[in-house]
Amino acid sequence: MSRANHLSGDPAAINEFIDKFDIFLLDCDGVLWSGDHLFPGTVETLELLRSKGKKVVFVTNNSTKSRSDYQKKLTSMGIPSNVEEIFASAYSSAIYISRILKVPPPKNKVFVIGEIGIETELKSEGIEFIGATDPAFRRDITPEDYKGIADGSLLDDNVGIVLAGLDFHITYLKYAHAYQYLARGAKFLATNTDSTLPANHTFFPGAGSISIPLINMTGQQPTALGKPSQAMMDSIEGKFQFDRKKACMVGDRLDTDIRFGIEGKLGGTLAVLTGVAKKEHWEGEDAKVVPAYYVDKLSDLKG
Amino acid sequence: MSRANHLSGDPAAINEFIDKFDIFLLDCDGVLWSGDHLFPGTVETLELLRSKGKKVVFVTNNSTKSRSDYQKKLTSMGIPSNVEEIFASAYSSAIYISRILKVPPPKNKVFVIGEIGIETELKSEGIEFIGATDPAFRRDITPEDYKGIADGSLLDDNVGIVLAGLDFHITYLKYAHAYQYLARGAKFLATNTDSTLPANHTFFPGAGSISIPLINMTGQQPTALGKPSQAMMDSIEGKFQFDRKKACMVGDRLDTDIRFGIEGKLGGTLAVLTGVAKKEHWEGEDAKVVPAYYVDKLSDLKG
Repeated sequence: MSRANHLSGDPAAINEFIDKFDIFLLDCDGVLWSGDHLFPGTVETLELLRSKGKKVVFVTNNSTKSRSDYQKKLTSMGIPSNVEEIFASAYSSAIYISRILKVPPPKNKVFVIGEIGIETELKSEGIEFIGATDPAFRRDITPEDYKGIADGSLLDDNVGIVLAGLDFHITYLKYAHAYQYLARGAKFLATNTDSTLPANHTFFPGAGSISIPLINMTGQQPTALGKPSQAMMDSIEGKFQFDRKKACMVGDRLDTDIRFGIEGKLGGTLAVLTGVAKKEHWEGEDAKVVPAYYVDKLSDLKG
Repeated sequence: MSRANHLSGDPAAINEFIDKFDIFLLDCDGVLWSGDHLFPGTVETLELLRSKGKKVVFVTNNSTKSRSDYQKKLTSMGIPSNVEEIFASAYSSAIYISRILKVPPPKNKVFVIGEIGIETELKSEGIEFIGATDPAFRRDITPEDYKGIADGSLLDDNVGIVLAGLDFHITYLKYAHAYQYLARGAKFLATNTDSTLPANHTFFPGAGSISIPLINMTGQQPTALGKPSQAMMDSIEGKFQFDRKKACMVGDRLDTDIRFGIEGKLGGTLAVLTGVAKKEHWEGEDAKVVPAYYVDKLSDLKG
């Protein structure tokens, strides 16, 4: 397996690296910031890339925020951006449903496990849905629910898709509904499959840990729309129309970001050491995912 | 692989079968009844076994009920029983914690995901616990929770065990707490790992689908205390003190009941065809679990 090229402190190599690409797909947490802490030099590095005519796209598996919510987050972190530069897994899921899956009506309604960000993106693509933040599903299950879910009288006959994302208000009732739609043949999608959500320097349950009860019950694997799923890469390419050989994925996680870029056959992948990955992870003989390049921190690209 | 002996309609074989055993471990749903429907002849069959001096034990993976709750259920179904004949996974879990695991105090408190049946059984064994039905955990997660869970100020330092069972009031907050205790070294137990709960002629999420997010987050497998876990068999043997060669497990599921009896090296296993298993399941060449005997229905044992 080839070795990762270390760029930090080598201005000539950095220039050559930047010149190779037209577009940079950037993971955010662990690359631009960590938690609430913006890494020094992030803004200047993005400015440098833009000043050289490079397209920048922020690619995140965060499924709880719509693109405009996420843009507000970038702004609050002090990072200039516009909403068209943002690609989040809720948006990716909506695009996939409306433009790729294209389930014919009337059986094209979506049962959603997730938060308002998913609702916003589904609405913007004109997709009908139930579940999500509706208080009717954020409550305890009752004997009437068991009966009506089992006999179908409480189900919506037009649901043909179950989409599961991160849901801070998950309930047994939502799982019972989602399972029943899947058992009746609904297509199974997941915004992303991250098992954990990094926050406050530890981990909380991620979208993949919210959807896994449904995998366990049905034996089915969902089509995942976040990194490293190539369904997300296809959506990004469909939107931005670029030459994959002139694109570079930048991230701090080998199993999501770097794998996403390698399996997407991008021209390059760049790992940063400010998040999850350490260089020992790809220097071992049995390393499965090796980035083409790495820097100690993103701002090393400023030279 | 040996073939299962069909007993139905063969009085001599039935007598010989019954005479071989001192104790019958009986699964309930799918064997004695289905949902709310008591199978005809169930009561008379149990009477016959008792009249021949056989010990009868009701063995269930149901973790939401204490033994006395479960006895009320048997009574409501018209089945005479006493609480000492009942072995449910909540009780099995409590026994395992107090008599086998024996974590030294003070770090022996249990964080519980589950319902009141688990609380009742833990209390009867004098085990301290938090979580379960406490409304403090049946609510939405707040920013203060993230902070306090992450820095430990909202955690109980004495929790050394996480026990996960079926919880109809599961919340993101409970998962966040349970994960954090496991990440800090708590032992991981599960009442049982059934992926689904059969009800109203369909399936709802089972205990195994409630605990699986924690497996997904931690990469750890819990010690399971329900069938087919041999931890449950050890608890049953510890309580009733019988010769395994003179014991027979009766059930409708190959992967839980029959496997439980075979791996427990009981003298016999008896499958019934009134629940999940069909004889085609063990007649194939690649059948992994084959019962020693089977009857079309339990009441065939009356001859």
